[in-house]
Amino acid sequence: MAQQEVQNGGVEKAVAVKFTAMKPQLMVEAPKAVDAVQFYKTAFGAVEAGRTVYPKRKAEQELPHILSAQLELAGSTILVSDIAEDSAPVKTEGNGCVLCLETEDVEAAIAKAVSAGAVAEGEVTEGEGACCGGRVGKVKDPYGYVWLICTPAKKCVDVEA
Amino acid sequence: MAQQEVQNGGVEKAVAVKFTAMKPQLMVEAPKAVDAVQFYKTAFGAVEAGRTVYPKRKAEQELPHILSAQLELAGSTILVSDIAEDSAPVKTEGNGCVLCLETEDVEAAIAKAVSAGAVAEGEVTEGEGACCGGRVGKVKDPYGYVWLICTPAKKCVDVEA
Repeated sequence: MAQQEVQNGGVEKAVAVKFTAMKPQLMVEAPKAVDAVQFYKTAFGAVEAGRTVYPKRKAEQELPHILSAQLELAGSTILVSDIAEDSAPVKTEGNGCVLCLETEDVEAAIAKAVSAGAVAEGEVTEGEGACCGGRVGKVKDPYGYVWLICTPAKKCVDVEA
Repeated sequence: MAQQEVQNGGVEKAVAVKFTAMKPQLMVEAPKAVDAVQFYKTAFGAVEAGRTVYPKRKAEQELPHILSAQLELAGSTILVSDIAEDSAPVKTEGNGCVLCLETEDVEAAIAKAVSAGAVAEGEVTEGEGACCGGRVGKVKDPYGYVWLICTPAKKCVDVEA
């Protein structure tokens, strides 16, 4: 009862954000993600749970770039992605590891992170550019790490065009 | 029956390496790891499960540097570590995210990764420099990512000197 009487005025930012998964995403210079996935299978015994690819846009593009390959490894999940000129939402400077946090409330999570000192980068986007087709935003924390805040991954099937 | 009759001669490198955990380790310029831990708690609701610190070596060193703080986040674990001149085994160029893979057989895991194309960096070390006091080796994969191969983390208690 008492908890329901909390005044809303002073707790504007005290949103309860629940994260359902945390997945390191390894960016690999396109089109090497396909090789990287094979490497992680061979070297560490990773098991591929799903893969989404970009639509093939260019005639000269031999392999469709990998938007996100999900690999199960030691009870956790890592994502491996090709990074190319046109993969805007997940682009970082050069190669790099970003950390995906999945939540149903992307905006609230970003607002909370920003109020704690992170810097939002870009807009929340939806669809092709996001991990597995959901909504995704990005923040950089004060220590230089980039976190993708995204809706929980849908079933990752091969959507090769 | 048939599977038991596989000849051993040709499978010299087919060691079965079992990994029990995979944890991204975020390197933070010393002595900011303590602030970073607080940030991840505030921004993402991470819960600290344990912390090990370096012995205080220098009179002028105000805070003992964090060797490894374990944070539980969305069902996974991240490690946050101060990176300084004397933290040799886990040093990378500048800040960076490395991926810790825990296994009981560090040497076999490194050998398997190297045979798949990774490059071993340095020797397997034991004790203070390792995550939570175990044995740790390091490989860099062909895509530039650094993996720490280490024995499973012991109970992470504060070992402040």
